Amino acid sequence: MTGRLEDESYARAALTYLAEPGDGRLGALLRVLGAARTLEAIKAGRDPGAECGAADAMRAALPRAISQWQVRLAGVPSADEMADFCRAGIRLTFPGDPEWPGQLDDLGDARPYALWLRGTADLRFSCLRSVAIVGSRAATAYGCYVASEFAASMAARGWAVISGGAYGVDAAAHRGALGAEGATVAVLACGVDVPYPAGHKDLLDAIAGQGVVVSEWPPGRNATRLRFLIRNRVIAALATGTLVVEAGRRSGALNSARHARDLHRRLMAVPGPITSDLSAGCHHIIREWQGTLVTSAAEVVEYLSPVGAMLRQPSGGGSGAPGRSASGRAMSAGARRAAAVLDRDQLDLDAAAVLDALPRRGGMGPASISDRAGLDLGTVMRSLGALAAGGFAERCEQGWRARGS
Amino acid sequence: MTGRLEDESYARAALTYLAEPGDGRLGALLRVLGAARTLEAIKAGRDPGAECGAADAMRAALPRAISQWQVRLAGVPSADEMADFCRAGIRLTFPGDPEWPGQLDDLGDARPYALWLRGTADLRFSCLRSVAIVGSRAATAYGCYVASEFAASMAARGWAVISGGAYGVDAAAHRGALGAEGATVAVLACGVDVPYPAGHKDLLDAIAGQGVVVSEWPPGRNATRLRFLIRNRVIAALATGTLVVEAGRRSGALNSARHARDLHRRLMAVPGPITSDLSAGCHHIIREWQGTLVTSAAEVVEYLSPVGAMLRQPSGGGSGAPGRSASGRAMSAGARRAAAVLDRDQLDLDAAAVLDALPRRGGMGPASISDRAGLDLGTVMRSLGALAAGGFAERCEQGWRARGS
Repeated sequence: MTGRLEDESYARAALTYLAEPGDGRLGALLRVLGAARTLEAIKAGRDPGAECGAADAMRAALPRAISQWQVRLAGVPSADEMADFCRAGIRLTFPGDPEWPGQLDDLGDARPYALWLRGTADLRFSCLRSVAIVGSRAATAYGCYVASEFAASMAARGWAVISGGAYGVDAAAHRGALGAEGATVAVLACGVDVPYPAGHKDLLDAIAGQGVVVSEWPPGRNATRLRFLIRNRVIAALATGTLVVEAGRRSGALNSARHARDLHRRLMAVPGPITSDLSAGCHHIIREWQGTLVTSAAEVVEYLSPVGAMLRQPSGGGSGAPGRSASGRAMSAGARRAAAVLDRDQLDLDAAAVLDALPRRGGMGPASISDRAGLDLGTVMRSLGALAAGGFAERCEQGWRARGS
Repeated sequence: MTGRLEDESYARAALTYLAEPGDGRLGALLRVLGAARTLEAIKAGRDPGAECGAADAMRAALPRAISQWQVRLAGVPSADEMADFCRAGIRLTFPGDPEWPGQLDDLGDARPYALWLRGTADLRFSCLRSVAIVGSRAATAYGCYVASEFAASMAARGWAVISGGAYGVDAAAHRGALGAEGATVAVLACGVDVPYPAGHKDLLDAIAGQGVVVSEWPPGRNATRLRFLIRNRVIAALATGTLVVEAGRRSGALNSARHARDLHRRLMAVPGPITSDLSAGCHHIIREWQGTLVTSAAEVVEYLSPVGAMLRQPSGGGSGAPGRSASGRAMSAGARRAAAVLDRDQLDLDAAAVLDALPRRGGMGPASISDRAGLDLGTVMRSLGALAAGGFAERCEQGWRARGS
């Protein structure tokens, strides 16, 4: 989404102002009517039940939903006002947009209507190989240490670290990834421009500078208790797997873990002393939810990687974990990146052509890349994904550029 | 074994002097020839391969084994000298003896030739409901605390605690059980009269006073590194399940755990911080050996109890764990015992008759009980087992007596 919004994207953005995320009634309408017609129906106060062919129970619920959503119509910015967000570095992605992470479709009608983004990383490609690291706000020194170490280690191996931007485990995970110069994604329960918690203003800016800050809520919206719970399904759905580092039995992190389990994502937990209430949730996940006990980032990578990926990765000298040199964390960021990539010779012809087309400085939009490489837009997008995952390309403000190695 | 040893039992005792335990060659000879004829063959230097019908490989190995065992013949005490052990409170049990724990037969030809015992508890009946609690000698405060708490809690629920009498986790487990006035079994890698480690002389005496000290090695024999490993299979085989509290990756406790797994016993481990090398073995058991993560004694009882046992136990007011009152550990020992028993009305007629025949003070041997109750010896032994497990009867120096409730 750049410049002035098209009808469909403007409607998606507007809908994030009208309904709380995860509302299956709106999800069903969007699925059938699309965003523009849905917004039109809400504005007109028209019951779209008949035209969307919804089931009887749904049709009965729609008139009330429509009038609920109408309440907030006055607060929706105009298309011009929305364009100001773009100028402020805030963008929107939604189903059909190249940056949209397709794995969110697993949420069915509870899929986000759209996601507001702030940051330099490409959300879709960052999340291709990603781990959600979540846990208690009131984490112990142990929990913070473990979260930070795992995140740094995963980042060094080319995995993005997704978390919720909160105090405790979340912050330690983001900081660990940032320190390893890796990509990290903060999924907030408030607008991407809202510094919440206030003490994390700098951290969220740092995440935006190196990764991406994400929210289902429009700019300016505040976090509430309920919104954290609604938000958790997005963290679980975005990530390849979810790792709970430290959590009490009633922690919100268990809510994220349950979403991960229900979405058939890989679920892991770090054990701790049985005398610590903050490890009770982790032990519950292992005992009762068949979560995998993990004690190192290497075990997380092993569990999240497709079978055989360790062998197929040509880097790292054979038997080691992908992207890990013998000297491990002591490598420079550049060396880590180089070690995490595929061998350039192994790129397929399309990806090699796209890489050749990419500028080293500045950036280029997908349409221009398509022109320059002589490939259709779909092939370009697929190739950019492979190149980003392999460490050859990165998203920037102006589009895409080649990444030095 | 009381008074002067019979031929077979004397031979069993003598064989513990000649061969290191777990020698499958001797186990095979014993299985076919019995102890008296095996001892006779060793004394005569005669190869019994033909008469025992052993496989070719075994027959080829026997002459060398016989001459190895002959080396120690001079050190075997006479029957009169052995009777002195009985007077010193040391007894022998062996296959066929009423106190022999039948579950040791799962060890096949590596089954102990006999076990030397010192203590007041009946080994067979103590081990009917038992948990082995094992772990590192160099346990942390955390490991010792957990071992002691679990042991006390298991003992209060009527479970015997088996361990190895060593420093660290072993000692904490024994002490926890002793403190809860429960039965505890120390399986040593030296003679039952050898105070090893020296600092545990008082602890071992206390175990003998309230439980039983066990060894495959004859009185006077010292512990060696190898003997600890040989001993571990007996701990695993005796117990219903094995719980590893704290263990490094190379700890002997992992050797016990492997035996438990190979014997299809239930295997459990207590998690700890992943930053502690002494929890690495526990995490390995959970991750790689499908050991069950446990965080409380209630979870251990749940895992070790036969399905439905929690419901069939009439005590504890219905839904609670067996033998646990609402006030838990705060109960007096007497109340704990009473709470752990079956209702007397639920005893079958044979057990009720045996209970009636038992003295309240002093003690009575099985033959006299058989006379008095008008029941055959087999029925008496089975009934004594049920009575001991239910908390109605206990073994004492003079035989058996009723246990006050």
